Amino acid sequence: MSDATITNPAVRNGVDTATLFATLDAIKSDPELATFQFRASNRWISGTNSESTFAGFFGAKQEMNHKQIQTATADHPSILVGEDHGPTPVEFLLHALAACLTAGLVNISAARGIKLTEVTSTVEGDIDLLGVLGLSNEVRNGYKQIKVSFNVKGDDPEKLRQVVEQSRKRSAVYDVLTNGVPVSIDVVAG
Amino acid sequence: MSDATITNPAVRNGVDTATLFATLDAIKSDPELATFQFRASNRWISGTNSESTFAGFFGAKQEMNHKQIQTATADHPSILVGEDHGPTPVEFLLHALAACLTAGLVNISAARGIKLTEVTSTVEGDIDLLGVLGLSNEVRNGYKQIKVSFNVKGDDPEKLRQVVEQSRKRSAVYDVLTNGVPVSIDVVAG
Repeated sequence: MSDATITNPAVRNGVDTATLFATLDAIKSDPELATFQFRASNRWISGTNSESTFAGFFGAKQEMNHKQIQTATADHPSILVGEDHGPTPVEFLLHALAACLTAGLVNISAARGIKLTEVTSTVEGDIDLLGVLGLSNEVRNGYKQIKVSFNVKGDDPEKLRQVVEQSRKRSAVYDVLTNGVPVSIDVVAG
Repeated sequence: MSDATITNPAVRNGVDTATLFATLDAIKSDPELATFQFRASNRWISGTNSESTFAGFFGAKQEMNHKQIQTATADHPSILVGEDHGPTPVEFLLHALAACLTAGLVNISAARGIKLTEVTSTVEGDIDLLGVLGLSNEVRNGYKQIKVSFNVKGDDPEKLRQVVEQSRKRSAVYDVLTNGVPVSIDVVAG
């Protein structure tokens, strides 16, 4: 058999745990390797439709590139005077959260030797648009609350719940969404 | 000429301002129309790779659907033991921010009669991965800071700077990223 996920016992849940542990060891001995900068380049198309390109990022002391240039389109739905050419910006927050928590729980399960067979989640964000539409100064612009519902199948249910909790504790997106982050905006206009 | 953006003077920057103002009037007279819930359904594929689907949402007192089902894939890059099948979860936060601010400034410009010819932005997020990797309890898991750089072309530069500032003041994603939002996580494991 040539499939590494079958023949290589270090690969669990699609994660090469030998490489994962080696990466952790490398960073432990040289913490500067952990300094990263991620980037998106966005271009307005028309109306509320725009597209972001993800090409390079900085990490492990060097400029790096994605294996292939990635893109994402966003738009508003028709009911909000858009043309629905892509998910809304606020839906991408929900995607980022689900994807970050899922990647984390998969890595943690792999490191702990816990087998996963299925992970699905739904994320709901409640928002009152009176804020963004400028119709109220009492209503906040963003989500009032976000609710994530995970369905995780695999080994021992108690261990599965623990890896979700550990993923939450170490999730970059969960941290940003719950605690906020300083954002600066510069404008060149002409 | 049949192009509505040319023949219809209410369409500016690709935004139908007549519909925009009618929508605002409708919500002013019935604020409950502004109660929305957005959703993402995520499914783990393998390793750090997962995919979200955006189908329905609630708004204007009814269940609605996107014109077509939208999807987004996320993964970690190879240097972080992923397979780079999509942007990272944290890159989607940068995309959401750029897309939200851009849609806002386009709508505001259209409402104010300001013509735009080009809007581009780059968003950079600085992160020290010692947090998410569990190698430090002092380093936060998420971005330390996010920097947005807009390049806006069109009418009067001072007016263009003002619409970016007004967009920031009413951006849902900017609010969530800078102020945070309560997130709950439920798990069904088995």
